[in-house]
Amino acid sequence: MARPVTLSASEAAGGEIPAIGVGMLGYAFMGKAHSNAFRKIAYMTWPPPLRPRLVAIAGRSEEAVRNAAERYGYERWTTDWHDLVADESIGVFDNGGPNVVHAEPTIAAAQAGKHVVCEKPLGRDADESYEIWKAVAATGVKHLCAFNYRFVPAVRLAREMIDAGELGEIRHFRGRYLQDWGDDPSLDTWRFHPDEAGSGALGDLGAHVVDLARYLVGDVATVSALVKTFLPGRQVDDAIEAAVEFENGAIGTVESTRLALGRRNAFQWEINGSKASLAFDMERLNELQVFRNGSRTRGFTTVLVSEPTHPFWEHWWPPGHIIGWGDTFVNELWHFLRAVAGETDVAPLGATFEDGYRAAEVCDAIVRSGQSGRREQLSYRGL
Amino acid sequence: MARPVTLSASEAAGGEIPAIGVGMLGYAFMGKAHSNAFRKIAYMTWPPPLRPRLVAIAGRSEEAVRNAAERYGYERWTTDWHDLVADESIGVFDNGGPNVVHAEPTIAAAQAGKHVVCEKPLGRDADESYEIWKAVAATGVKHLCAFNYRFVPAVRLAREMIDAGELGEIRHFRGRYLQDWGDDPSLDTWRFHPDEAGSGALGDLGAHVVDLARYLVGDVATVSALVKTFLPGRQVDDAIEAAVEFENGAIGTVESTRLALGRRNAFQWEINGSKASLAFDMERLNELQVFRNGSRTRGFTTVLVSEPTHPFWEHWWPPGHIIGWGDTFVNELWHFLRAVAGETDVAPLGATFEDGYRAAEVCDAIVRSGQSGRREQLSYRGL
Amino acid sequence: MARPVTLSASEAAGGEIPAIGVGMLGYAFMGKAHSNAFRKIAYMTWPPPLRPRLVAIAGRSEEAVRNAAERYGYERWTTDWHDLVADESIGVFDNGGPNVVHAEPTIAAAQAGKHVVCEKPLGRDADESYEIWKAVAATGVKHLCAFNYRFVPAVRLAREMIDAGELGEIRHFRGRYLQDWGDDPSLDTWRFHPDEAGSGALGDLGAHVVDLARYLVGDVATVSALVKTFLPGRQVDDAIEAAVEFENGAIGTVESTRLALGRRNAFQWEINGSKASLAFDMERLNELQVFRNGSRTRGFTTVLVSEPTHPFWEHWWPPGHIIGWGDTFVNELWHFLRAVAGETDVAPLGATFEDGYRAAEVCDAIVRSGQSGRREQLSYRGL
Amino acid sequence: MARPVTLSASEAAGGEIPAIGVGMLGYAFMGKAHSNAFRKIAYMTWPPPLRPRLVAIAGRSEEAVRNAAERYGYERWTTDWHDLVADESIGVFDNGGPNVVHAEPTIAAAQAGKHVVCEKPLGRDADESYEIWKAVAATGVKHLCAFNYRFVPAVRLAREMIDAGELGEIRHFRGRYLQDWGDDPSLDTWRFHPDEAGSGALGDLGAHVVDLARYLVGDVATVSALVKTFLPGRQVDDAIEAAVEFENGAIGTVESTRLALGRRNAFQWEINGSKASLAFDMERLNELQVFRNGSRTRGFTTVLVSEPTHPFWEHWWPPGHIIGWGDTFVNELWHFLRAVAGETDVAPLGATFEDGYRAAEVCDAIVRSGQSGRREQLSYRGL
Repeated sequence: MARPVTLSASEAAGGEIPAIGVGMLGYAFMGKAHSNAFRKIAYMTWPPPLRPRLVAIAGRSEEAVRNAAERYGYERWTTDWHDLVADESIGVFDNGGPNVVHAEPTIAAAQAGKHVVCEKPLGRDADESYEIWKAVAATGVKHLCAFNYRFVPAVRLAREMIDAGELGEIRHFRGRYLQDWGDDPSLDTWRFHPDEAGSGALGDLGAHVVDLARYLVGDVATVSALVKTFLPGRQVDDAIEAAVEFENGAIGTVESTRLALGRRNAFQWEINGSKASLAFDMERLNELQVFRNGSRTRGFTTVLVSEPTHPFWEHWWPPGHIIGWGDTFVNELWHFLRAVAGETDVAPLGATFEDGYRAAEVCDAIVRSGQSGRREQLSYRGL
Repeated sequence: MARPVTLSASEAAGGEIPAIGVGMLGYAFMGKAHSNAFRKIAYMTWPPPLRPRLVAIAGRSEEAVRNAAERYGYERWTTDWHDLVADESIGVFDNGGPNVVHAEPTIAAAQAGKHVVCEKPLGRDADESYEIWKAVAATGVKHLCAFNYRFVPAVRLAREMIDAGELGEIRHFRGRYLQDWGDDPSLDTWRFHPDEAGSGALGDLGAHVVDLARYLVGDVATVSALVKTFLPGRQVDDAIEAAVEFENGAIGTVESTRLALGRRNAFQWEINGSKASLAFDMERLNELQVFRNGSRTRGFTTVLVSEPTHPFWEHWWPPGHIIGWGDTFVNELWHFLRAVAGETDVAPLGATFEDGYRAAEVCDAIVRSGQSGRREQLSYRGL
Repeated sequence: MARPVTLSASEAAGGEIPAIGVGMLGYAFMGKAHSNAFRKIAYMTWPPPLRPRLVAIAGRSEEAVRNAAERYGYERWTTDWHDLVADESIGVFDNGGPNVVHAEPTIAAAQAGKHVVCEKPLGRDADESYEIWKAVAATGVKHLCAFNYRFVPAVRLAREMIDAGELGEIRHFRGRYLQDWGDDPSLDTWRFHPDEAGSGALGDLGAHVVDLARYLVGDVATVSALVKTFLPGRQVDDAIEAAVEFENGAIGTVESTRLALGRRNAFQWEINGSKASLAFDMERLNELQVFRNGSRTRGFTTVLVSEPTHPFWEHWWPPGHIIGWGDTFVNELWHFLRAVAGETDVAPLGATFEDGYRAAEVCDAIVRSGQSGRREQLSYRGL
Repeated sequence: MARPVTLSASEAAGGEIPAIGVGMLGYAFMGKAHSNAFRKIAYMTWPPPLRPRLVAIAGRSEEAVRNAAERYGYERWTTDWHDLVADESIGVFDNGGPNVVHAEPTIAAAQAGKHVVCEKPLGRDADESYEIWKAVAATGVKHLCAFNYRFVPAVRLAREMIDAGELGEIRHFRGRYLQDWGDDPSLDTWRFHPDEAGSGALGDLGAHVVDLARYLVGDVATVSALVKTFLPGRQVDDAIEAAVEFENGAIGTVESTRLALGRRNAFQWEINGSKASLAFDMERLNELQVFRNGSRTRGFTTVLVSEPTHPFWEHWWPPGHIIGWGDTFVNELWHFLRAVAGETDVAPLGATFEDGYRAAEVCDAIVRSGQSGRREQLSYRGL
């Protein structure tokens, strides 16, 4: 090059923004979703509360974990999660592994002083979830149960409307999480093994419904439920149906299934209040349906939740340029890093391990009701 | 007029098409809907199986019933329904009165040899419904419980698809009938009086859900339900929620409410089978959502049910020229007149009084489950 | 009957409501739609402004017209429309025949003192339309060009919003009337013969788009258009496309086609104003999409136009119980009968023959622009 | 730590996957979108064809460009784009700057041997676009005009269906790109300056419509257009309307506006063929509406384009877990890197500079037609 180059060195490492080391357990579906989120937080949320440094990833298969480390840019990999716990450069332990490995590694990481993220369901049942919550809460670290759908902008907007009293008295919640991939007898995954998963559609999908029910309406008081396994030989539930009553008097339904043909990721809910109603479908996650009483031209309004005034939208694009499912994890883990940085608390807008535990109590009550044929009352343990 | 007029006398009375006298009990909402249907049958369905002659209408208020007679073109009116029973020119007795007057007049009319139509719910509870069915069946007349939504073209199309095996094994039925007019403490109507109505949202709306559940999926085996009255002082239920199990193993939900703000007449249902799924909303009653497995471009198809090949469409308009809610009664009563004329049977495509009774058993079980907190088993009486 | 019958004689003929004799030309699609409307007006709109008496129907085929008379309940029938003109018991002459018979019979009927309804397009071109308007206006009778879509409740609501200034300055109108039945080379109907129809998709469907454009936005100033015949041997246009400019400065498009596969009766339009936008689809004719600026939860609201406060809804059902395409004619002809009864004027809410003529001028300009390749300026003749 | 740590050094730099240096011009909207894409390609597409190394970013404002370098992780920054051209570690030059800086830097970069990406519109008019194409084509580098909407999975699926003949003969294309942010007289941006932008809604939004029209239907033969500026003092067009004719005989419309209140990013198009129709809306970019002729349950199918068999979906998530607008750039630049790596060609599935030029010819013809009032014939220059 003949003429002088004036390129300047950039503060490529993020300048004064402090870094935080991330240790990830799991490299599959959730490993991809969470790793993508940590990478995007570094520049989509600007300035990020902390700059995630992808330190290490752990998983059972050496080949898969090595590949994941290379793919997502982790500095190191291991087949033994204890290495993550022992690694002092890791400040956040993110557990995206199968349910069976939620408890021990998460507790160990917290006891090693790391802030912890754990995928839902927190434990395989309420007892295990309670143990995780109790043990982790005792350490004083920040904890997030990764109910990422709280971080869909439309869902957060719903919450803000409810908090502001815009719905009035809530009468109904109807939530259903419908998928259809379960109708294949030849499928095998840890999600079909009770010891690894705890339950089937209940813990996988129903837990999400329960969490948003709690997030938006409040705690559940009773459940009257059916639990069903359709496929011969399958050892976990394929679907659950529940009539539910909330502590605040609202009534409704909680449903989840892996056999709703044609519904690929249809987490749909509707809330009817005395002043307004809301409806949502995860397959159109950028939209919130809002009905407000009053005008001659009232009706359900399709709010495209993508405005500067809408939750999380400061990170994204101009209005109408929608985000994707994967982006909800960016919002979620950004919130968590803010909590870690002391800028906010995980609760009440994010789900803590207490929320993970309480959702598990409802799921357990659904199982009990399915077996007993009785309306089951909920009771929740404290620390 | 100077020049000769070539106008011919028309066969204005319908020529060779035999007439049948109609006696109507009730002049309000259902009186209007049924009267309109009988008038339209005469020319929209052509040739009609029988030409309805609107003989007489009965109701409690002399002014209202006289006005209705004039409006809808009844030859006579009366404030005493016994007059209809005694009137030999009446061949069809149509009971569109409040629930409290379903049993006695309907039975009396049938015993007088008239074919009978009765609005839903058949009786105020299962016992009364059973008595009506038993008494009327003993007479040998034709009987129709006016679950008119069986006669929405999209609903009939769904039934035909199911009958043809196009859905495969049915796994789920989710039905909800949502309205919102009940949230007004100052309202008073017979629909809020237990002695006149039997129940609230349950019998008014829930019975429709139960009937289509039975029509499309089959008989209900168990219900686990909540029954709720929200408004202080209201004496009937405002809403019900139920998890249901069908005799064929499908599971799902039945819901009805008068407090779902923004839902004006939202009778929505979805059925998931192993080969196809269907979804429907009464507020868009001309559309059936159909998902079929298989192709790369599969998805829910919005079928505008308005083609010559679609049920009932021979009566209506060119494709895409939709019909209204009121027109479903034309389809329904046309079917009934065909049965009266011996061209078909009321069952299985129309609802007989047995169907009315069976729906009432499910409604009663919902009430029992709401009280007992237990999953209630259904059992059905025979004649 | 043994015991006394208390039935009273009803005022079956409608009591004091004056009757008006209707003479109908045409027994096919429009004959059915209009006859149904006149019959329903008698009891759905209550009290009706006038009680339609179906006096006589005329048409070319003796068998068909005799059958239609019997079916719809006309007292007489004829194969010679002059008989209708000569019939003094006829007060309203309704021309639902092919376009080729719009001019002469309509003018003759008006000159005989009958109020006249004529299906759209008024004439086969602007000149013929002008002649009809001029001749009929000279007689002083009431005249309605049957652009029935003005009488869809959602369309009238749109008009009311615009009249009230709720849209602000209108910038865009995009209208398209899409059907797909034309893609069959074996089809033959008068609609494909230029001498009988005048034009193809243009006059049949495009005229509706132009009328609502005028009704909602205002008169058209220029058109830049394409006119296309796709099927070999077809003698009328299959489709037209036009960029249009309105006198008030708004710009947009007018499109119509009989070859939009999958669109059965999709008359869709959207209007963007500076304060609000509206969108509509005839296949969901009970819904109006309304966007209003301002709130954080703005978006397009699906207004189910079926409330007591909505246009024409006093005739129909409880909220959410939708009407059908055929019912728009009830609203339309009720409006016309009110005008005949002196309760209102046909204009500006109904389309007069002047409106029919003006729409024809726009259609002619589209044809000219298609041929010339130039933007054509509109000019409108007065009387 | 007492026990040995088995963490291995990861191949964090991507192992054997060759890197390619990226030089970015522009740090605003498109700079963010493209930078995000290059970062995600490294791990969402696996293995990526080349591993993008973000070498340097250039822009006018020193503060903004320094901030962008830090934010997106560029190694260096500069306020002089010549530095990017001179930088030998840059293999791909990506021009996301305002239209006025498309020509010179892009040509210079190509002449320096760099593969070039340029945002749309390619130049400010057809002449400039032609010059860019001609100069760049002469260098032999790969070139992509960043019409990213070709890389929406639903759009690519549409293209694949059309290429496979599934639509039959195409009769209509209706495309409109509607936004509403332009209705603010106080706004100022380079997009409102003719010298910087070339045109307004035409080049910004209309060019996208034209490109997809060409991509899906074929080259445009004639346009009959209106070009309008609504806001006083605005120097570029606010909206255009055009009736268009394609070389293959299809006819339709091309519309774009910044004044369609309520439409935030509504790039909607519909194509009607003799065998199938397609419809799309960018605000629901994961969905393609497909109508196929034939069955009794035909209708528009909402295909959720998120299956393993769907275009680009190998990079993303399980079915039904939708992607966002930003992700379309990942698909696009992945395609370009594949072309750079010799695995495919940019054309015909990606837009080359020839496509950028041809779109510009259509835009110019729209301007000419707006001025002349005549239907303008298209002619396209070759090299």
